[in-house]
Amino acid sequence: MNSVIELIKSHRSIRKFKPQIVSDQILQDIIACCQAAATSSNIQATTIIQVKDPSKREELAQLAGEQPYVASAGAFLVFCADLYRPKLACEMQGGTFSEGNTEHFIIAATDVALAAQNGVIAAESLGLGICYIGGLRNNPQQVSDLLDLPDQVFPLFGLCIGYPDQDPQIKPRLPVSTVFKQNSYTDVNELDGIKKYDEQMQNYYRSRTAGKKQSCWSEEMKALVGKASRPFMREFLKKRGFFMK
Amino acid sequence: MNSVIELIKSHRSIRKFKPQIVSDQILQDIIACCQAAATSSNIQATTIIQVKDPSKREELAQLAGEQPYVASAGAFLVFCADLYRPKLACEMQGGTFSEGNTEHFIIAATDVALAAQNGVIAAESLGLGICYIGGLRNNPQQVSDLLDLPDQVFPLFGLCIGYPDQDPQIKPRLPVSTVFKQNSYTDVNELDGIKKYDEQMQNYYRSRTAGKKQSCWSEEMKALVGKASRPFMREFLKKRGFFMK
Repeated sequence: MNSVIELIKSHRSIRKFKPQIVSDQILQDIIACCQAAATSSNIQATTIIQVKDPSKREELAQLAGEQPYVASAGAFLVFCADLYRPKLACEMQGGTFSEGNTEHFIIAATDVALAAQNGVIAAESLGLGICYIGGLRNNPQQVSDLLDLPDQVFPLFGLCIGYPDQDPQIKPRLPVSTVFKQNSYTDVNELDGIKKYDEQMQNYYRSRTAGKKQSCWSEEMKALVGKASRPFMREFLKKRGFFMK
Repeated sequence: MNSVIELIKSHRSIRKFKPQIVSDQILQDIIACCQAAATSSNIQATTIIQVKDPSKREELAQLAGEQPYVASAGAFLVFCADLYRPKLACEMQGGTFSEGNTEHFIIAATDVALAAQNGVIAAESLGLGICYIGGLRNNPQQVSDLLDLPDQVFPLFGLCIGYPDQDPQIKPRLPVSTVFKQNSYTDVNELDGIKKYDEQMQNYYRSRTAGKKQSCWSEEMKALVGKASRPFMREFLKKRGFFMK
């Protein structure tokens, strides 16, 4: 195991940061790493907005579901899936943008996630900690208004980056034999894998919370996929020019 | 700039590989890195299928639009957005899976891309080269049949991993000032940035193809977003239990 793999395996989300700004120079390096990621058909559908304005940071922290580290982290970036720029380029060449194509949305969202994860590894290699903020999708219209996003630009998630002021444990993952398969999708051991992981997570939560948190993965999944999440999302995306056909 | 950042910045896709298998031990490390990525609400919606079966590899190479390296790379992985496993877990707890929720699809696809990019950095840190294969989405139904994917499991992309047998140049990216913004989405310099990049890409293609390839980014974008891509995608996803509401 080399040092890069060691670094990647040591990831845990950081939600408490020292009050130290992440310098512009470091951010330039992180952004360059984001840009170096693979991109589908070279579309480069990622736009990154750094929010320095303290009042906007406070508002985003609220909109994300009261996550104070959105305001307090050394830097906060909003990663947007951007089809507006390819649209401009297409029109520059006399083309007509194909609005609302589902595949274009998939391309753009995938691009953004690849780019962001590159930036995350770069940040962690510099001793910084990170936390993804999917909570921005709680209020995508308000976030879009706050950041003046044009149609065809979707705030996929935020990213807190900063100097860690906590040292949490690494969270266990599903057994590798459950998520990594050979030649086809066989699910004969699926329930066993889930049960094994449930036990592990129960112990993990118990030990971290002195027995207070009694939960396991399958219970968490029931809470998550046993109801619609952000049920406004499809209509929001359509309104913003995505996902119409 | 540290060695991790240097590694990330040196990425280019590899499409020609030496006929050397990637060992199971290396793959275990790569998969562990995939699993270490952040995951939304701990859903871990990533299932990775390694395809070793030579006839399946050949078929996937065809389905991806005649990309021979899908068959010849030292390893080939299919990254799937998997809501089937969370569904099983939910039902194990007596819950009813909320089918076709758009936000769940976004969560799952994002999870997969973060995981894959971790695996990519790990692979590249070991001297391996990679190429993402979005072309699997040319024929998602056939790919799903070939790999016995249940409903709620979507093959987002493939990944070739292997020992490079070529040394291509790094492709230039859009100007950082175009993709990285402060506090809000301002597009005053957008067209300038695109034009500047167009010039750069024209020179890049000319020098790589001895003047044969005459293209630029905005022309490529016209070809890509000036028409619907994979127009069957929305119906396919609905049929597979995604994206219905």
